[in-house]
Amino acid sequence: MYRLTVLTMQKGIYYAKVGDKIDRHMLIRQSIRGIASNGKPFLTLRLSDQSGDIEAKLWAIKPEDEATYSGKTIVQVQGEVFDYRGRLQLKIARIRPANDQDQVNVSDFVPSAPLNKNDMLEQVNQYIFDIENAKVQRLTRHLLKKYQHGFLEVPAATRHHHEFMSGLAYHVVSMLELANAVVKLYPSLNKDLLYAGIILHDLGKVRELSGPIDTEYTPEGKLIGHISIIASEIHQAAEELNIEGEEPMLLEHIVLSHHGKGEWGSPKPPLVKEAEILHYIDNLDAKMNMMEKALEKTEPGHFTERIPALENRTFYKPR
Amino acid sequence: MYRLTVLTMQKGIYYAKVGDKIDRHMLIRQSIRGIASNGKPFLTLRLSDQSGDIEAKLWAIKPEDEATYSGKTIVQVQGEVFDYRGRLQLKIARIRPANDQDQVNVSDFVPSAPLNKNDMLEQVNQYIFDIENAKVQRLTRHLLKKYQHGFLEVPAATRHHHEFMSGLAYHVVSMLELANAVVKLYPSLNKDLLYAGIILHDLGKVRELSGPIDTEYTPEGKLIGHISIIASEIHQAAEELNIEGEEPMLLEHIVLSHHGKGEWGSPKPPLVKEAEILHYIDNLDAKMNMMEKALEKTEPGHFTERIPALENRTFYKPR
Amino acid sequence: MYRLTVLTMQKGIYYAKVGDKIDRHMLIRQSIRGIASNGKPFLTLRLSDQSGDIEAKLWAIKPEDEATYSGKTIVQVQGEVFDYRGRLQLKIARIRPANDQDQVNVSDFVPSAPLNKNDMLEQVNQYIFDIENAKVQRLTRHLLKKYQHGFLEVPAATRHHHEFMSGLAYHVVSMLELANAVVKLYPSLNKDLLYAGIILHDLGKVRELSGPIDTEYTPEGKLIGHISIIASEIHQAAEELNIEGEEPMLLEHIVLSHHGKGEWGSPKPPLVKEAEILHYIDNLDAKMNMMEKALEKTEPGHFTERIPALENRTFYKPR
Amino acid sequence: MYRLTVLTMQKGIYYAKVGDKIDRHMLIRQSIRGIASNGKPFLTLRLSDQSGDIEAKLWAIKPEDEATYSGKTIVQVQGEVFDYRGRLQLKIARIRPANDQDQVNVSDFVPSAPLNKNDMLEQVNQYIFDIENAKVQRLTRHLLKKYQHGFLEVPAATRHHHEFMSGLAYHVVSMLELANAVVKLYPSLNKDLLYAGIILHDLGKVRELSGPIDTEYTPEGKLIGHISIIASEIHQAAEELNIEGEEPMLLEHIVLSHHGKGEWGSPKPPLVKEAEILHYIDNLDAKMNMMEKALEKTEPGHFTERIPALENRTFYKPR
Amino acid sequence: MYRLTVLTMQKGIYYAKVGDKIDRHMLIRQSIRGIASNGKPFLTLRLSDQSGDIEAKLWAIKPEDEATYSGKTIVQVQGEVFDYRGRLQLKIARIRPANDQDQVNVSDFVPSAPLNKNDMLEQVNQYIFDIENAKVQRLTRHLLKKYQHGFLEVPAATRHHHEFMSGLAYHVVSMLELANAVVKLYPSLNKDLLYAGIILHDLGKVRELSGPIDTEYTPEGKLIGHISIIASEIHQAAEELNIEGEEPMLLEHIVLSHHGKGEWGSPKPPLVKEAEILHYIDNLDAKMNMMEKALEKTEPGHFTERIPALENRTFYKPR
Amino acid sequence: MYRLTVLTMQKGIYYAKVGDKIDRHMLIRQSIRGIASNGKPFLTLRLSDQSGDIEAKLWAIKPEDEATYSGKTIVQVQGEVFDYRGRLQLKIARIRPANDQDQVNVSDFVPSAPLNKNDMLEQVNQYIFDIENAKVQRLTRHLLKKYQHGFLEVPAATRHHHEFMSGLAYHVVSMLELANAVVKLYPSLNKDLLYAGIILHDLGKVRELSGPIDTEYTPEGKLIGHISIIASEIHQAAEELNIEGEEPMLLEHIVLSHHGKGEWGSPKPPLVKEAEILHYIDNLDAKMNMMEKALEKTEPGHFTERIPALENRTFYKPR
Repeated sequence: MYRLTVLTMQKGIYYAKVGDKIDRHMLIRQSIRGIASNGKPFLTLRLSDQSGDIEAKLWAIKPEDEATYSGKTIVQVQGEVFDYRGRLQLKIARIRPANDQDQVNVSDFVPSAPLNKNDMLEQVNQYIFDIENAKVQRLTRHLLKKYQHGFLEVPAATRHHHEFMSGLAYHVVSMLELANAVVKLYPSLNKDLLYAGIILHDLGKVRELSGPIDTEYTPEGKLIGHISIIASEIHQAAEELNIEGEEPMLLEHIVLSHHGKGEWGSPKPPLVKEAEILHYIDNLDAKMNMMEKALEKTEPGHFTERIPALENRTFYKPR
Repeated sequence: MYRLTVLTMQKGIYYAKVGDKIDRHMLIRQSIRGIASNGKPFLTLRLSDQSGDIEAKLWAIKPEDEATYSGKTIVQVQGEVFDYRGRLQLKIARIRPANDQDQVNVSDFVPSAPLNKNDMLEQVNQYIFDIENAKVQRLTRHLLKKYQHGFLEVPAATRHHHEFMSGLAYHVVSMLELANAVVKLYPSLNKDLLYAGIILHDLGKVRELSGPIDTEYTPEGKLIGHISIIASEIHQAAEELNIEGEEPMLLEHIVLSHHGKGEWGSPKPPLVKEAEILHYIDNLDAKMNMMEKALEKTEPGHFTERIPALENRTFYKPR
Repeated sequence: MYRLTVLTMQKGIYYAKVGDKIDRHMLIRQSIRGIASNGKPFLTLRLSDQSGDIEAKLWAIKPEDEATYSGKTIVQVQGEVFDYRGRLQLKIARIRPANDQDQVNVSDFVPSAPLNKNDMLEQVNQYIFDIENAKVQRLTRHLLKKYQHGFLEVPAATRHHHEFMSGLAYHVVSMLELANAVVKLYPSLNKDLLYAGIILHDLGKVRELSGPIDTEYTPEGKLIGHISIIASEIHQAAEELNIEGEEPMLLEHIVLSHHGKGEWGSPKPPLVKEAEILHYIDNLDAKMNMMEKALEKTEPGHFTERIPALENRTFYKPR
Repeated sequence: MYRLTVLTMQKGIYYAKVGDKIDRHMLIRQSIRGIASNGKPFLTLRLSDQSGDIEAKLWAIKPEDEATYSGKTIVQVQGEVFDYRGRLQLKIARIRPANDQDQVNVSDFVPSAPLNKNDMLEQVNQYIFDIENAKVQRLTRHLLKKYQHGFLEVPAATRHHHEFMSGLAYHVVSMLELANAVVKLYPSLNKDLLYAGIILHDLGKVRELSGPIDTEYTPEGKLIGHISIIASEIHQAAEELNIEGEEPMLLEHIVLSHHGKGEWGSPKPPLVKEAEILHYIDNLDAKMNMMEKALEKTEPGHFTERIPALENRTFYKPR
Repeated sequence: MYRLTVLTMQKGIYYAKVGDKIDRHMLIRQSIRGIASNGKPFLTLRLSDQSGDIEAKLWAIKPEDEATYSGKTIVQVQGEVFDYRGRLQLKIARIRPANDQDQVNVSDFVPSAPLNKNDMLEQVNQYIFDIENAKVQRLTRHLLKKYQHGFLEVPAATRHHHEFMSGLAYHVVSMLELANAVVKLYPSLNKDLLYAGIILHDLGKVRELSGPIDTEYTPEGKLIGHISIIASEIHQAAEELNIEGEEPMLLEHIVLSHHGKGEWGSPKPPLVKEAEILHYIDNLDAKMNMMEKALEKTEPGHFTERIPALENRTFYKPR
Repeated sequence: MYRLTVLTMQKGIYYAKVGDKIDRHMLIRQSIRGIASNGKPFLTLRLSDQSGDIEAKLWAIKPEDEATYSGKTIVQVQGEVFDYRGRLQLKIARIRPANDQDQVNVSDFVPSAPLNKNDMLEQVNQYIFDIENAKVQRLTRHLLKKYQHGFLEVPAATRHHHEFMSGLAYHVVSMLELANAVVKLYPSLNKDLLYAGIILHDLGKVRELSGPIDTEYTPEGKLIGHISIIASEIHQAAEELNIEGEEPMLLEHIVLSHHGKGEWGSPKPPLVKEAEILHYIDNLDAKMNMMEKALEKTEPGHFTERIPALENRTFYKPR
């Protein structure tokens, strides 16, 4: 499944090296005006394709250039990659805005999940279908439906792991498949709680994050957070759907505790078996994603760049 | 204000010393059957009055004694206090169950706040009245009304501080008075958010705790916790009352963050000025309560017992 | 698979409650002489069956009793369970040493894995057979053969998880099945390294621990530890078998890093993808085992005892 | 009270944004010579007014410029604010040294407390007057008199909070007012110890810090620290004034413990009630100061910059 | 040097094992009255000789026994050592108070340093004589003289290391010898600061601790601590002796920082080379003392008891 | 001994200040091509002598310059030291590659130990000769011989302390002398274990590090580490030499535990007295080396730069 990621990203700017010649369309993600030491204005551009981004300087600009090369503009650019103080930068040789003949769309320059939205939605719905407890099933279906559009769009995080369009849905599908395997090995696990917990656990990100591109935290995201957002939603949905019994409380607990510890943002640690296992499955899938992404760019016999969310470790790629 | 506490508790069992003779009514809080090394059954009783409790053994009991001296029974007891392995114990000389002529009630043997419930409710309502923002006021009034009965009954915690009947209300009243003083010194503070935050911050304890006597955590208390309970309630109340704008989010944030840090149970740290100040006021009042309680029993020129919730410190009482 | 555990242990002493009458064979695990307050000697016995153990006092013993009721003796005992200072104790009514007619063996009173040794060995060998890299396969087969006897006998730990006879083999089999499922979901994983790492990771426990019953740490276990023991063995085996290339180093790394962090005993954190995943699989299986064991004894709607190795958490058993 | 701060600082360089035109007097706080990539010398200036500072480059300087534009010089400068690698910088269009007609003084360009020194001294003396215990009063008056000049000049810290001229006195006055309110709510507090402790707690900063402008730590500040400096002074003053009894020890303890914990520089944690409360009042006032300063520059509906001394948090300014 | 310790302590109660018969003089360190389960009073005695102490019960006492067997009384006792709940206890067969013919003194039953006071004082004075800087020498001599009596009496700590009469002097002498060796290897070290620092570093214990027997912390010890006590004394002595220059500040710093970190009680970490080295020498000698004491009682091939001040480690004694 | 260090380094580039004129041979340690803002290529050179290194830019290079001024080339360079963004940089006025007449060698530009290799080897061998236990002696001699070449070449660390050619041997010799002094003061120490432990403790660095110049970690160094490398070697050597008994285990333990704690890379903490002392001696010598190096460059009355491996402390150099 993950091999798709590799294929999609290959040959993109993420894989560029010093000396590479570039001649392609790219998206201006950010454009900031500066003044050079000779007193002349210039632009610092962040150019991206689906695989990553790179910084570039547009020197000695004319007044109209600032508007032409502003953010969210697609450009056709030629240039060479060089090393600037230890980071790659693109030396622009030629640049022009894209036009209609170019037939390019912003979404072509943004990384996104290797599965399409409909397929992922279908898979998630299949798991909902497999939930046997009617209360758990209704609650889950209700909330997924309420936030379905965002669920299929947002990344799973602003950085670190699954930080691409539809990343959340993709992460949830992977976790469900893993849960399915784990449930078979440990039959004492309640698969209903586990599947529902996985589908709901990060659903609050739909309101925590600003959207699929250049994702930022919303004020609600910073002040309340996706964990408490979805916990409140479960509480409210149970009232609306007149669901009694302890199921809503258990799902609320699973969601509240899925970060594992107070230091990591959970107001309660996992105190139900399925909550503990969900926390593990979540971590395992996120770490696999981070390691695979970093190892993709690494030559056999070498170490990856440091990975901040993995305690800054650097991983070895066997020969 | 706090001096009342002292008067109420004085001369109670909490102040007993080795060699003191006891002749009074007490409440059996707990009664556990054991078997002595000579093979005979005995009871281990935990006897309390309003100031505290003490252990006592009832040796060589008859079969009917187990029922007579079970939990929640009031007894008339005579005996002497002695030291058993470093802890005080009561050597029972004579014991009998209380009868109607004794005119005693369970509530006389349980510690409770030094102010009565009606007075405290009136004070809190006065602060709600002082809230100028109508949305904040309506939300606060709605939730206080919903949980008013429990609010006036439950302690503020199962142990550590304000662990007595009506302790929560008493703690809230103290915090409101402190907030009132602080707002005068720092006029940039939004007193509406601060007052409402104080009234709501621990209101979830009404469902987190089992009740005013022999208080324990409910399953909901352990799995969800008072912080998330009340956050959901604010969210839901705002929907029911059709309150728009960011006020509900700000109150939710203040409640979620009032423990200050993830390690201490808050899923978000305070990120609004009033949330930070509420956290400080909460701490200051709780610590004053713990220090005063420990110092009451200590002679000038000596140190208190260790106080677990104050990093196990022991405080010096100046001469 | 884990359901077997439940069946095996049911109705054992682990499930005893205050007031239960006992009439059965038990094994004396420990016998310590004391002197009662009346000056007479007595024995403190720790009696076990396959499910757990309980303390009992043998009062007013005769000189010969000390020899009769020493450790590793099987006895037929009658008595009643009572609460002594918050822990269960057995009040002995009648006791006698087992005799030949009783047809009981020490191994019947010791907890052990729910699968038999031959079956587990066969499963592990099947996984070795599935290893495609010949160097990895030879190294693994060589070391398993060298320590096969102990591998099938020792527990996986002295306490916490899989702390029963053959616990190590049982834990390894579970981990291999889990790894098998994970490899299918993340095909970039090198299954050879993962399978070999799992089989070898705790093999040093054969020398770290004293044996299957009343397991203690050996001096070598305390001073060197199972992690460094098996790392040295891999190094030495590679020399003996003339295995070149980086495979021995990778296996050594996986073993060295499987505790995840320095604080937890690993001199290196996982820096190879399969090492990280093995650490996760190890944890997941150990935690499942601990939670299931604790939940078995718990009534629905209640919380388990605190589990020290799970940060002292107590888990809720849904109704 | 704090609103004054706002008025004083408004419209200063601290509030500058990209594109702002500057035409005003500023103080050169620092001037460092560099060599540009074209081989020519230039100066990096740090220019300040009372609200803050900004960096500026003076390119292609002549030999005499280095002397003309050295530190502590007031200049008349015109230019424009721009963004240089994420930080604001001033592009100098025209610059000249100030002359006598300009009628400007260095102290006009340095931030200072919103109250004047005499008023603050009077307030502090009033609190000393309110101290009833003669020993505590004499000790406090003696030490304040000894260090009065510095007390009215130094900031309360080199950065973080009250980092302006007379910041210490201003912080002490705020704390005294807060203490006054707290004492009224908790009458068990000994106001003499609390007032004296507040006046003395940071008095060692007079020797720890180099002075009111461009404040640095002195060697004595780094090696001994303001806490131990003033503790020794209290010890010595008690000897000189022949003050007996435990009051000097209590004041010494309050001062030693006012940072709360060993990790934060206190050799003893607070073990006297008034020491604990002083620690809280100190923190509350410092945090209010930091939050207000950061929020002043922030638009409603946005978050402040990260505040290092508040665990790097960023605060939301409600709409 | 340390071998003396071994000889002195050998055959004392510290070395007793289950079953040992005792017939000797011992000192009652503590005597506490209890009431047995049969209602009769008894005494719990803590009996000591120079090597250690043991608990014993005196059952069924007569009223006059309580006075006869009170604390600080020397007794002649016969009995047998047994195990009571995992700790050794003495079963008293016969006991009587010592009389004049017995010719025993309290100081014979208290552990003390293996060197006599005069020899240690002479050694310390020799090191003071070796200090070349006259200011450092005068300060050190002045303070040692001021506290000489206590310096030769108090232990170096209430528990953990050198917790015996004259322990402080003995620890200082060991440290001076170690410093002497280190200075020879690293000639850049200033031996004057190092020797003076060692002699002064714990001198505040003379006021922090209650005295040589049954040592406790004084209120001044708890509230100020030996570190700040001696720092103030250095400051004051420098004033009295009119010593100028930075030497007093350096000595104050060395003393303040000798615990190494804030968490360990030092308000400043070592920031002078000699301070860092003193911290190391202090630790090394204290750890040697703790390890030797624990290993003395341990058989070769076994591990010591856990040593709390060495992170609860247990040390192996090679065969 | 350490004074040699000072003499060797004096007047090197490490001591350069802003404005210093340079005219000397230096070694290009690193050469990286960049593109200037004017579009022209340039080289960033890191130039070193035995005392340290400095950055320099070679602007507007010709195509052939890149080859001429590549890494490991010795050049004759003239220029001036200036400050670039807070760090020193060399402004090159004139540069040429060294030629045969210059009579310079790469090893002249690399820092190395102040003692020569043969002298150090002789000293180490003398200590091996002093080891009385034949097993310990044979093991130590065998392993030193096996890795003698590297032992005399590699630094003791890639940075922090003894980070120069032959640094490991130099560090070991210092530690042996310190151990010799300590053993005399504490005769209970087993000097054989201590000497052997010191000689072996870092010997794995021979394989952990890439070599004496521009030292990096090897993959084996990162994945296994010098601690586990040498532990395996001891294990294997004992087998090869047929050494029985617990000596190899003790040496293995000493090596495994010499970093003191899991967080610092040791899989076991020191549990043998000599292991604990070795850890102390190792630390003491490393810290002395770091402090002396930093203080050398510091003027009396000032503080050193921050030393990362000493908790970022900055040390005061007394006047």
